Amino acid sequence: MTVAERRLRADAAHNRQLILDAGRAAFASDGIDVSMAEISRRAGVGFATAQRRFPTKEHLLREIIAEELSGMQEAATDAAPAGDPWEAFTTSIRTCAAHQALHPGLAGAIAESVSAATMTDPAGHIASMFTSIAQHATTTGMLRPDVTVGDVLAILKGNAGVIAHSPGNEVRASARFVELALRGLGAT
Amino acid sequence: MTVAERRLRADAAHNRQLILDAGRAAFASDGIDVSMAEISRRAGVGFATAQRRFPTKEHLLREIIAEELSGMQEAATDAAPAGDPWEAFTTSIRTCAAHQALHPGLAGAIAESVSAATMTDPAGHIASMFTSIAQHATTTGMLRPDVTVGDVLAILKGNAGVIAHSPGNEVRASARFVELALRGLGAT
Repeated sequence: MTVAERRLRADAAHNRQLILDAGRAAFASDGIDVSMAEISRRAGVGFATAQRRFPTKEHLLREIIAEELSGMQEAATDAAPAGDPWEAFTTSIRTCAAHQALHPGLAGAIAESVSAATMTDPAGHIASMFTSIAQHATTTGMLRPDVTVGDVLAILKGNAGVIAHSPGNEVRASARFVELALRGLGAT
Repeated sequence: MTVAERRLRADAAHNRQLILDAGRAAFASDGIDVSMAEISRRAGVGFATAQRRFPTKEHLLREIIAEELSGMQEAATDAAPAGDPWEAFTTSIRTCAAHQALHPGLAGAIAESVSAATMTDPAGHIASMFTSIAQHATTTGMLRPDVTVGDVLAILKGNAGVIAHSPGNEVRASARFVELALRGLGAT
C-alpha cells in the first residue's frame, strides 16, 4: 500500500467514525426520523461521503445499535456477580433497559434489534446474554418455569413504551418499571 | 327552533358522527399521523365541514379517546366480579390493555390519555377506575403496599411499547405481557 493509499484509508475510517458519532447523538436526541443529510451536516462530512460509508440511514442505524449492544453485553458481563443466576439474569436486563432510558430516541430500535438478534441467531452473543442466563435461572428455580425468551424481550419492548410516554422522567420511570416487570418473571 | 334549524342541527350531528367513525378507523389502522384531510375524505364530508366540527386533529383525537375510555370503563365495571378486589383491579387493567391491542395505532395515545386523565382529575371517572380499585386491593393485602397509580399507568405505557414492537402479534403479546406485569404488582 502506498502512502497515498494509507492516507485515503485513514481518512475514510476517520469520516466513518465522525458519522457514527454524529448519528448516535442525533438518533438519541431527535429519534430515528432524523435525516442522513442532517447527520452528515452535524458530522461535518459531505453528504456524498456519508452515503459512501453508509448507503442508507438503516445501514448507519444498524451499525450504531450493533456497537451499543456489544457495549451493553460487556457491561452486563462485568456487572453480573458470578454464581448468582438471578442477579446475573436481572443485571443483564437492567443494563440493557438503562441503556434504552439513556437513549430515548433509540429505545424502540434497541428493543427491536435485541429481539431480532435473539430470534435470528439463538447461538449468538446477544441471544446468549438472555437465553443462557435465563435457562440457568430457570433450572435453579429462580425464574417462573414458564418464562420464555419472548417474555424477557417483552420487558425491553415495554420499557420502550414507558420511555416514550414518560418524557423528562425516562430514567426513573424505566428503572421502576423494570423492577416490577422482573418481579413478574420471578418464581417467588 | 324552526324545522330548518332542527334539520341543520341534525345534519351537523350526523356529520360529526361520520367524522368520529372515520377518525377512529383511520387512527386505529394508520396511526395518529393520518391527516384531517384524509379523515374527512374517508368520512365523505367536506374538509371545511370537518374543521367546523373539529378545529384540529387533536380535538378529534381527544374526543375519540374520551369515548373509548368511557366504553372501557363500562366494560371494566361490567366484567369485574363484585367483592374480589384483585379481580376488579386486574379486570380494569386487562380491559384497557386489550383495547390498546385492538387499536394498535391508538395504543400510545390511550396510555397517554388515561395517564393525563388520572393525573389531572384524580376524582374523575377514569382515575377512579384505577385508583379506588387499586386502593381497595392494597388495603386488602392483594397489591404490594408500595404500588402507586404511576406503576399501574406504567403497565399501559409498557403495553403500548409491546404492541408497537410486536407487529401482527399485538393481541397475544399484549395479553401475555399484562399478565406478567400484573404479577409484578401483586403482593404474593
